[in-house]
Amino acid sequence: MDASNLAPSLIRMPTGCDVRRECRSGRFDGPTAGLAPGYVQGNLAILPRDWADDFLRFCHANPKPCPLLAVSEAGSPVLPALGAGLDVRTDLPRYRVWEHGKLVGSPTDVTPMWRDDLVSFVIGCSFSFEEALLQNDIPLRHIAGGCNVPMYRTNIATQSAGRFHGPLVVSMRPMKPADAIRAIQVTTRLPAVHGAPVHIGFPEAIGVSDLGKPDYGDAVPIEAGELPVFWACGVTPQAAIAAAKPPFAITHAPGCMLVTDLKNNQLSLF
Amino acid sequence: MDASNLAPSLIRMPTGCDVRRECRSGRFDGPTAGLAPGYVQGNLAILPRDWADDFLRFCHANPKPCPLLAVSEAGSPVLPALGAGLDVRTDLPRYRVWEHGKLVGSPTDVTPMWRDDLVSFVIGCSFSFEEALLQNDIPLRHIAGGCNVPMYRTNIATQSAGRFHGPLVVSMRPMKPADAIRAIQVTTRLPAVHGAPVHIGFPEAIGVSDLGKPDYGDAVPIEAGELPVFWACGVTPQAAIAAAKPPFAITHAPGCMLVTDLKNNQLSLF
Repeated sequence: MDASNLAPSLIRMPTGCDVRRECRSGRFDGPTAGLAPGYVQGNLAILPRDWADDFLRFCHANPKPCPLLAVSEAGSPVLPALGAGLDVRTDLPRYRVWEHGKLVGSPTDVTPMWRDDLVSFVIGCSFSFEEALLQNDIPLRHIAGGCNVPMYRTNIATQSAGRFHGPLVVSMRPMKPADAIRAIQVTTRLPAVHGAPVHIGFPEAIGVSDLGKPDYGDAVPIEAGELPVFWACGVTPQAAIAAAKPPFAITHAPGCMLVTDLKNNQLSLF
Repeated sequence: MDASNLAPSLIRMPTGCDVRRECRSGRFDGPTAGLAPGYVQGNLAILPRDWADDFLRFCHANPKPCPLLAVSEAGSPVLPALGAGLDVRTDLPRYRVWEHGKLVGSPTDVTPMWRDDLVSFVIGCSFSFEEALLQNDIPLRHIAGGCNVPMYRTNIATQSAGRFHGPLVVSMRPMKPADAIRAIQVTTRLPAVHGAPVHIGFPEAIGVSDLGKPDYGDAVPIEAGELPVFWACGVTPQAAIAAAKPPFAITHAPGCMLVTDLKNNQLSLF
């Protein structure tokens, strides 16, 4: 078979750059889960400069829920450390625009509302460590069930910074004990995408009274002989922004992440 | 204060070599737990050459319960990789001598019964990883309680090799969830001394029906909100030797380990 007879999509898997190009052109505006396998995806938060310093300190003080992959210069829409030619105004599938904590729009391009005081933050996302878990043959129930991971607000307070504060939000994955041990090893290598779990075994000890009623995402069943394993979640900074109600903010739309040129394997400590 | 006025024992902590010298001279014949902090201690098993090949294969096939630190040449009592001048016949506090699976003596020196077909095996011991756990401020209940760690025969079979077979024996340490996660990280770095846990959370899943009745060692209480964490244990090869009943064998007496010149920190993978 001659490779020139294959459709381009069969010759190679799409890269992060491919996904960004499709977003920028307007041809793609959906969730990015499973796209560009191997490439790091990130949460996006864009804030005015006079809120950005507090938020940067908030991320620094809470590295497990808010592992910062990159921060832009004020007014600059590029993040060269994450991708050649990357433009945060156009390269995500869809955005959410917030004013004083209220959702005011869900555009696919935020160029029209760009300002020269906006600072962009990209925060690591669980897609990266889930890929590593699947590569280690650790089943993930929410993926098997085709739903979102269940997430819970805990009774663990984040370290506040200026106007940003709030509870740690965690995601939960039920696992057999041997898989839980392996998952701790695998995610320990990945501090840039939430790292090792923050809790295992006793939901009520972290203020989660009913695993069947997640605060975000979808409930998943826990089988006999499985432990609930909890990771710090990127919804934590989103919830802190929502509570702080800055006059203006832009975030990614749920599930519509920034796909970068970084490879997940590059994030591994060892 | 002039250091020359201090007793030698106050000037520096004893080394592995110091402990071996005291054993060899007959001045010390007790348990080695807590002696020569920082130095690797090991389980000793000495078998005739015609049993040694099976045992070497048994250790190789079961690296978590039987992490081999060193194997001697047949007939040679030295193990230069573990210590300059180390002589396994004299350098442990106390031995056990076995004939056809029966205990026939507990001498402090096995030179009189040495044979030119004996092969010595030194197997890593949990003292090394417990030191690492304590350095990470993870409390160990059996140490706080001044008793032995509880150990259990599981329903997990070891990989048999020739005449050696039997169940995996595990040690159990109760831990708070955050400590359990940290303990998995810390012991993952130490595969030469049993490595990461083999189970967490559900004793019955590995055939342990009553944590209050250990097969070896002493029961310890588990508090509310704690998980039982199980590590592969060096009693596994001892039990396999006892079951195989070789015509002649020498082991360390319980708790009376070989103290080496290796440092625990040297064993850490990273």
